[in-house]
Amino acid sequence: MKAVLLPGINESLQVVDHPEPRPDEGFALVRIRAAALNHRDVYIAQGQYAGISTPVIPGSDGAGEWDGRRVLIDPSLNWGSDPRAQGAQYRILGMPDNGTFAQWVSVPVENIHDCPAHLSFEQAAALPLAGVTAWRALFTRCNLQKGEKVFITGIGGGVALFAMQFALAAGAEVYVSSGSAEKIAKATALGATAGVNYREENWDKTLRSMAGGFDVVIDSAGGDGFAKLPALCNSGARIGIYGGTMGKVNGLSPQILFWKQISIHGSTMGNAADFAAMLQFVNQHRIIPVIDRVFEMEAVNDAYARMHHSEQFGKIVLRIS
Amino acid sequence: MKAVLLPGINESLQVVDHPEPRPDEGFALVRIRAAALNHRDVYIAQGQYAGISTPVIPGSDGAGEWDGRRVLIDPSLNWGSDPRAQGAQYRILGMPDNGTFAQWVSVPVENIHDCPAHLSFEQAAALPLAGVTAWRALFTRCNLQKGEKVFITGIGGGVALFAMQFALAAGAEVYVSSGSAEKIAKATALGATAGVNYREENWDKTLRSMAGGFDVVIDSAGGDGFAKLPALCNSGARIGIYGGTMGKVNGLSPQILFWKQISIHGSTMGNAADFAAMLQFVNQHRIIPVIDRVFEMEAVNDAYARMHHSEQFGKIVLRIS
Repeated sequence: MKAVLLPGINESLQVVDHPEPRPDEGFALVRIRAAALNHRDVYIAQGQYAGISTPVIPGSDGAGEWDGRRVLIDPSLNWGSDPRAQGAQYRILGMPDNGTFAQWVSVPVENIHDCPAHLSFEQAAALPLAGVTAWRALFTRCNLQKGEKVFITGIGGGVALFAMQFALAAGAEVYVSSGSAEKIAKATALGATAGVNYREENWDKTLRSMAGGFDVVIDSAGGDGFAKLPALCNSGARIGIYGGTMGKVNGLSPQILFWKQISIHGSTMGNAADFAAMLQFVNQHRIIPVIDRVFEMEAVNDAYARMHHSEQFGKIVLRIS
Repeated sequence: MKAVLLPGINESLQVVDHPEPRPDEGFALVRIRAAALNHRDVYIAQGQYAGISTPVIPGSDGAGEWDGRRVLIDPSLNWGSDPRAQGAQYRILGMPDNGTFAQWVSVPVENIHDCPAHLSFEQAAALPLAGVTAWRALFTRCNLQKGEKVFITGIGGGVALFAMQFALAAGAEVYVSSGSAEKIAKATALGATAGVNYREENWDKTLRSMAGGFDVVIDSAGGDGFAKLPALCNSGARIGIYGGTMGKVNGLSPQILFWKQISIHGSTMGNAADFAAMLQFVNQHRIIPVIDRVFEMEAVNDAYARMHHSEQFGKIVLRIS
């Protein structure tokens, strides 16, 4: 079969002829028609995780055909029995297991779901990893309620955009931040009330004067900016954090946290229940993932470069022909 | 009536003859027999809060007599309708309202509860503020479960000790920290499995090798030490923070928070439901508050000095004769 191979850390990806996977008991072969990139794929290629094994076919997100049905794949493998957190055997599809950047992938049958009827393969492939991450952070962890006010940092990334779309569909009012005025404009076109540019010195004061206070914040940056979030929150607020691109958090005030009864929820990926609930919500609200660009499989290195430079607004998709 | 008066910020407390309070509609006069100190009282005397009004009779904790019954007082006034957080009208008894360091205090009738039969007035007076703070942090916010492993920092303070006693009674395994070997020894005598001295450089490594990982951490320090807590946690752990004596938190890793799905819950005081649940638990498990020392009302300045220097192990009580 045709597959994208990561030969080793910091090497270019190659489109190769690769043996088809042979599914174990309880697994099935899905014929992938579209796949999507995640930051995880880029981090793996750059060797930014411990325990990376190569060569590997990357890719956590995929949609395609199985058993005569249009399907998409839940990339969470072996979550374990505790809904609070994934167990020690947890893995994400696409390293160490071969992933979705190939014509065929072997996945557990229970991870195969019907593709929402209103989505193309390209749109459906954009959903799984980022969608379930946004869902868990927003609803399972931060318990977002209709009518609440939400602040989503770093709009443009896949998780942030799904968080925005889900929050809007749930009846929340959404504000965003970005380092790009263009991305803020695109977000408001999609339904966000307003946005602030975090490169401006007093972005937090600007935001407070626009929005008042927030009930839920979804952040993937951490760093020194994170310490400004509790002051922007209403009492009883929840802050979900699913990434840390700006590094360690400094200057966080305990007094603001405890006096306002704020909760900070670390969140990553989601379990089978999160995935099923997310998929039902996407069907119910006919949510269409925002796609930045679709690349042919052969242009996978260009796709990675675009993700690496954080130029995208929405998901970067690979067409697997 | 005889009352302790704080004439102004940074002034000595005085025992004075003060007019008896005149209860408004829905309020009642309680004849106080014992009261207890909290850090809040010392912070008020030192002017460490905004909006302090003096002269005032301090004191949030009191037990005594009302309507022929032995009673104790819930010090939370006007929590409001949201169980998640106190509203803008919330006040704690004892500034701006005159408090419990007097023979008589006027409080809402709904804040008056039966004193547990197994407790003396001195023991009961030790319970309200610290007890409800520990209860909310441990159960309402951090959802402690039987069999879980708990780490409580700064053992010796009232809230920390109640958290320890409640956690033990709930069937948890408790570890503690302190800057004093004597306090650690006292805590283990009361049922803690072990403790570490946070003045020792590798206290966190020592703790990890003793205890493995924690499901719940209760902290009142914040500061740089707080950043070490997530690494000591199991996946799905909850960290409750109800104080910030060591100041702002620096060096907190987003990656550990999200990968382990850790929640940090700011928590302060408690609402009427928290108080009632706490009181029922104290009755059910016949919990006896740890009293450091009982002072006569006339020695109130000595009592404040002992609290200020953090010498105590357990609650500092005033006898109101």
